[in-house]
This record gives sequence, structure tokens and C-alpha cells, in this order.
Amino acid sequence: MSLRVSGGRLLAGAASRPMPSRTTANLVRTSRARSSRFSTSTPPPPPPETPRRPNPLVTSAAAGFAAGLIFVLARRWTTEAKSADVKCDGAPGLIVVDTHGRPWMPVDAEEQDDPRNPMRIRMANWVKSLQDHIVLTLEAIEASHSPLPSEHSPSSSAPPKFLRDAWLRPEGGEGSSCVLAGGRVFEKAGVNVSIVHGKLPPAGQKQMRAEHASLPQFDVPIPFFATGLSIVLHPRNPHVPTVHLNYRYFEVEHPEKPGEVLAWWFGGGSDLTPSYLVEDDARLFHSTLKDACDKHNTAYWPAFKAWCDKYFYIPHRKESRGVGGLFFDDLTTTSQIHAPKDGSNPPSKEEIFDFVKTISSAFLPAYVPIVLKNKDKGWTDEERRWQLIRRGRYVEFNLVYDRGTKFGLATPGARIESILMSLPEIARWEYMSEMGAEGTEEGKLMEVLRKPREWA
Amino acid sequence: MSLRVSGGRLLAGAASRPMPSRTTANLVRTSRARSSRFSTSTPPPPPPETPRRPNPLVTSAAAGFAAGLIFVLARRWTTEAKSADVKCDGAPGLIVVDTHGRPWMPVDAEEQDDPRNPMRIRMANWVKSLQDHIVLTLEAIEASHSPLPSEHSPSSSAPPKFLRDAWLRPEGGEGSSCVLAGGRVFEKAGVNVSIVHGKLPPAGQKQMRAEHASLPQFDVPIPFFATGLSIVLHPRNPHVPTVHLNYRYFEVEHPEKPGEVLAWWFGGGSDLTPSYLVEDDARLFHSTLKDACDKHNTAYWPAFKAWCDKYFYIPHRKESRGVGGLFFDDLTTTSQIHAPKDGSNPPSKEEIFDFVKTISSAFLPAYVPIVLKNKDKGWTDEERRWQLIRRGRYVEFNLVYDRGTKFGLATPGARIESILMSLPEIARWEYMSEMGAEGTEEGKLMEVLRKPREWA
Repeated sequence: MSLRVSGGRLLAGAASRPMPSRTTANLVRTSRARSSRFSTSTPPPPPPETPRRPNPLVTSAAAGFAAGLIFVLARRWTTEAKSADVKCDGAPGLIVVDTHGRPWMPVDAEEQDDPRNPMRIRMANWVKSLQDHIVLTLEAIEASHSPLPSEHSPSSSAPPKFLRDAWLRPEGGEGSSCVLAGGRVFEKAGVNVSIVHGKLPPAGQKQMRAEHASLPQFDVPIPFFATGLSIVLHPRNPHVPTVHLNYRYFEVEHPEKPGEVLAWWFGGGSDLTPSYLVEDDARLFHSTLKDACDKHNTAYWPAFKAWCDKYFYIPHRKESRGVGGLFFDDLTTTSQIHAPKDGSNPPSKEEIFDFVKTISSAFLPAYVPIVLKNKDKGWTDEERRWQLIRRGRYVEFNLVYDRGTKFGLATPGARIESILMSLPEIARWEYMSEMGAEGTEEGKLMEVLRKPREWA
Repeated sequence: MSLRVSGGRLLAGAASRPMPSRTTANLVRTSRARSSRFSTSTPPPPPPETPRRPNPLVTSAAAGFAAGLIFVLARRWTTEAKSADVKCDGAPGLIVVDTHGRPWMPVDAEEQDDPRNPMRIRMANWVKSLQDHIVLTLEAIEASHSPLPSEHSPSSSAPPKFLRDAWLRPEGGEGSSCVLAGGRVFEKAGVNVSIVHGKLPPAGQKQMRAEHASLPQFDVPIPFFATGLSIVLHPRNPHVPTVHLNYRYFEVEHPEKPGEVLAWWFGGGSDLTPSYLVEDDARLFHSTLKDACDKHNTAYWPAFKAWCDKYFYIPHRKESRGVGGLFFDDLTTTSQIHAPKDGSNPPSKEEIFDFVKTISSAFLPAYVPIVLKNKDKGWTDEERRWQLIRRGRYVEFNLVYDRGTKFGLATPGARIESILMSLPEIARWEYMSEMGAEGTEEGKLMEVLRKPREWA
């Protein structure tokens, strides 16, 4: 099991400290060796064949998910767009048009993190590196897995790979959707990065102030920038839990002083959604995330764990979506959780970014061991049926309550494929299902969903 | 094929004029011969075994569906409830408590329609009769169908029957959910009646006035009454379309003068959602409904057909849910569509009720021939896959846009099983699916969904 060893090493490294960007860069290079890279100097070659993309007008963006600060900004590619030609991996040549005085330069994930760069570039750099790292790890898991004879799985002998869709926004910004469909381990998996900017009108500023007290109010639209990484993995095996991750950075600038950041915050989290409860797995997931929090601020975990339970609650079912994890928003130097106690100083922006790097790096160590431990378990038709019923609940949460999804669906021109990438391949609804009754394995899960527990 | 003949006769009768209530009553008697009936005189016997209902606290109500006038009013059964004991088919004994001066008497669907009765009773009577009639017709279709060897279908030799859940609201009102799961023809089918009443607070009156101009505004809560029939049928065969129906009646009373109706209206409609377009089927469905409209008012069909196209539109997909049918709301003597032209008088309440009877009776003649014509066609895995993708869209529409579902989900204590009964058993989501491309059978449907057509 060379994967376990190699995976273990990667994980150990990531658990002990934020992933060094040089290692990441190496991984990135490997993954990009056979593909073209962003370039602003040469005219674009004809786009490669992309048979899985019926509409070549790949253009729009879903920064999506889970919070009011999220921006889904996307437009159809228009030929009227002007400015520097750029090309990106596997996508047709697109043109960048700047919206507020600066032409958009694609962020280079191979760059070493440089504290002299603005945070927007550093965070974009970080999420792109992490995306590559996670996609490669998941592909390694796929490659190492021999499906059971009973498993419904693609018959091809080549290990399943992510489909990588990179895009640039004509108005400025970029992103990439990495999606795996029909994997051996992952029935459907999406790992998305988006980097978008635009103008936030006065009404939007007012609305946003409700949840982000540090946001100033202007009578004119103010430039904003948002970048984030978003992941949803739906494994095939009912004994391997679904997992979700999202980390993001948001900032606004002075409308008349380009480059002067008026307000900024980080947000995000990660949560686990098993169909069958394995208590040790819930403990591992929670304690790995708790340890990452505790390295930075012992107030984080209890607050963010509770926030997660509250956010991923399905009121009409009176149950949680899963066993939780952590969720936070509006994390900045002046956040309530950073209010000075005992004469201590609030953390710097650098320290908060360090926390985001640590907690996002903890994703693989928190989740991959659970995959490796359970992926070879067999399952029955009834267990699959229960998994699909639970996926129905996942769909209900995402379509009815998730703020990012709702915002995305309501945004004209948003890239719907990216927004709804979080939905499972298959979901099931039964009327008055008898599954989940007390005293059964399914009932054990229901008990925890109805009354969230402390796992770490 | 005795079913076809017998079905044909039923349909012909229903198409030519509103179903005679005596015929209905006979059908109802047949269906009820072996089951207990509502009774207010004797104490309830112990409830029968109901293994499919894990929670015996069946109590709440989903008047559900498609419009702002809808009320989903439901509460947990409370032992403090006081008043006459009643029992209903297959449900534990429940107690009726009146909310506004009159004890609730279950509506008897076997009663002949009597114009001297208040409309609330007449409409409730009508939808209960129609429910019985439709359920029996669907069961007859199930009984006559021999599944193909390749069909995934229950192995039991007994023809599938609807599960009938009857309930009474402790606060007053009643309903019954008839659900078929795992049928041979219908993968999932729900035929629901609800009859509820309660008080509409001033804020609710104000909100409702936006869409119902005739609604008066009081500073105190006013009594309301709502009754309706709601149907969603998801066939197993991808060549048999999904269908939806909802017809309802709503009224409010003077808060101090019990029995004085201040405002009332009818609403509803029916629409067809094929996975594969058969133009003749769309034409039959539309023309049958159009004919029913035209008998009453030639302005109805063009207005209600367009309203349906508008209502069942999925903005984030830029496509309709299906090929439409008709949809109307707020239909009362003073509706805009009844504004006097050429000296004509607006229709009476009796005439509008007649229209509702005609149009709801047209459901089976509009749909059953399509089922009978297509149910024996074979299908491929790819056709099933496409059907499940289309069902994903159905889920998206119902969870994100349908006003009745949204209202139901937001109502604390609503009976979630009834509200979400409209969801298909299985739905599927693919990232950037190649299915539905131009020039394919799937693409033929997409063209019509993107640009609704006139079929009648």
C-alpha cells in the first residue's frame, strides 16, 4: 500500500504546519507538465478539444457557498471585450477587461508566498496551491483503489482523473473547476477555486454590513475582491462520508484611492456528512480541526464548532446535515472573538492568514484517513438506499438554505454548473421511509443529527 | 385490454361534462367498503397496525402547492386537545378542536353536491370525490400493467396499491395523503387532499393582498378556509411524462360575523413534464385542457397557458420545467379576466365552480391516454439517465421556486412528508452533462423547454 505511506507522509507534513509552498509548487509543476500555462505574451493557440464541454463559452464564476460575503460574478464571454489576450489550461482564449483601473493578471500558484504582496494575491496563490495539492491527492487515492466486483464503477482500466475547467472573467478575475465524475472512490467530487473582483453598490454594502460590521458605507459603488476554495466530495461507498470545505478571503477598497484596503475578512470551514456513523471517524475529523484551531487561538474551536452546528441545520427536518466540523465568517482583527482580554493584543492580519493556512491544510489529514479506513468495506443495497436518502437531505440543505447557493442561483448569468457542482450524482426521496428508525445503524446516525455532540 | 376500454369509458364520461357525483359516490363506496369511515358518534377503536408509519403522531397538514394563497397548517398532536372524538381511515384517533366558533365536522365525499351548502363544503366534497376517482383509476392502470422483464419493479405479484394516510387537525380540518411508492407504472405518485382553516393575521393579510386584490384588510386576525387537491405522478418509464395537478379554493370570513364570506377565489392548474418529447402527447394534453376552458370562457386558455409557462420557469437553468399546461390563481367574480366586455356580466360563483369542476375533471382524459400509449415502450439505460437528470431539474424547481413548497418548508410544524411528496424517488445531477445536445432526442425536448410552444 504505497499510497498509504505516501499519503501518510503528505498528511503528516500538512498536519504539523502549513504546507510549504515550494513543495506545493513541485506538485503543481508535475500536474502542469503536460498542459499549457497562463501566458499574457503570445497569442492563444486554437483551443484543445474539449468533448465534455458542449458549450465553449466557458466564462463565468461561482465563488459560491456558505456565506453572505460570497460573490458569484459571471458573464457570458463577449467578443466586445477588450484588453490583453490570455489563455488558460484547456479553455478557449479569453480576454481580460479590468473593472477598476488595473488589468487582471492571472495569479501564479507557483510563486513563493511573499509577505510584500497584497493579501489578495497571497490568498489566491494559497487556494490555487491547495487546490492542486488536494486534487493530486484525491487522484492518487483513485489510482490506488481496486473496486470490489460488486461495485458499480466505470469499467475503464485507467484511473479516473479530474476534469479541469479553467476560466477567466472578461471583467477581471479567474477560476478553475476541477470535477471528477464516476470515480472508483468518489462518485462525484468538485474542487473549485475562484478569484473575482467587481464593484459593490451602496445597497449591497448596506446588506453586507448586517454581518460584517467593519464594512464602511459609501454612496458610490466600492471595489471588492473575493477569492476562495470550495470542495464537495461524495464518495461511492456508503461507509465513506461526504465532506465539504470552503475557505475564502474578501476585501473592499476605497473607491477613490486604488489599493487602499478599507475592510477585509476571512471565512470558511469544513464539515463531515456520514451516512453511517463511525464515532472514531467523527472524533478524528473534529480533533484534527480542533488541534489546528488551538495552535492559533483556543477560543476558535468552541465558537466555530457551534457556528457549524447552527449553520448546517435543516429546520424543516429538525436535523443537522451531518456531524459538523467548523464554520466561521467575518474573521478580521476587530472581530468579537479577538476582543482584547487580559491585556492581550488582537492578532495581526498575518496571524489570521496563518490560521487560515493551518486550518485549510488540516483538511486532508482530517478526512483522508477516514477514506482510506472505510473505502474497502462492502455494502448492501439497503445501505446504498440509505446513503441516497441522506443525499436527498444534502440536496434539500444546499438548495433551500445554503446562502452561497441561494445567492448564486439568484445571480443572473452565474455559472450554474459550478454552483450546483455540490449536489450529489444521485439522491433519493421516499414518503414516510421506515429507514432511520431507533435501534438500527441508520437510527444511530439520526440520533446524532438530531442532537449534535462534542467529538473533540 | 379491458382496462383500456374501461379507462376509455371513464375518460369519455369525464371529458364530456363534469363527473357526476353519483358515479363518484359509487366509486367511493367501493373503495371504502373494507375500511372504517369518519364517525363522530362512537369512541375510536384501537388504531390498526401501521407498519409504514414509524411515528404515530400523524397530525399535521400540507395544503401545499404553487401559490401564495396556500396554507400549510400543522401541529403536533397534543393531549390537551379537547372536543369531539373522531377517527379516520387507518390513523389513530384524533380530536377536533375548533378555532373559530364551529366544531370541525369531517366533510363527507359521498354527499351529493347541494348548492345550498356553503362553497367550502362543496369544494371539499368535490376534491375528495375526485381524489378517490383518480386513485382508483391509477390503481386500475397499475393492476393492468405487466412490467417488462428488464424493468426494475417490485417482484410481488399483487398489484401495487396506494398507501392512504388520513389525518385530522386538532385545531380543525382534515386531509388525506394517498401515496404509491414502487409501482409498476408509477415509480412514485402522490394524490393529496387537504381541508384546513385558521386565522390570518394582519401581516398575512397585507402580504396576501399583493396578489389577491379582493382581500380586505383588518387590524385583527380573520378566519380563513382553504381546501385543495394536489397530485404529482412520476412514472417509471422515461417515455411516460411526469404530471402535476393542483386545484384549490380559499375564502376569508368577517372576524365578527361568522359565516359572512368577505373574499374567496379559486386557483390551480395542471402541467406535463416529459423527459422525451412526443409532440402528439403535448397536443393531446393541451387541447384537452383548452377544450375544458373554452366551454366556460374562451379568454381562459390563452391567459392560463401563458401563466403556466411563466410560473414553471427555472430562471437559473433558463428553461421551463416541462411543456406546461395551465395555471391560474385569484379566480373570482371580480378578477381582471372577468371584467365586463360588450355588456356581458361577470360569471357567478356557481359558474366559476363549474369551471373548476370541468377543468379538474379533464385531468384524467388529458393524461391517462398518454400513459396507456407509452407505458409499454422499452427504454435504455441512457434514457433512464436522462429521465433522472430531468428529475433533478424538477427537484430544483420545487425546492427553489415553488411557492407552496417554500411556504410549507418555512412553516414551523408543517407536515414535511406531505410537502415533499412531490419530489421524485430518484434524481440525478451531472457536471457539464453532454446529454441534451442539439440534434439528439434529448435536445428536441430542450428546444421546447427553452422556447415554450403553442400546442393547442
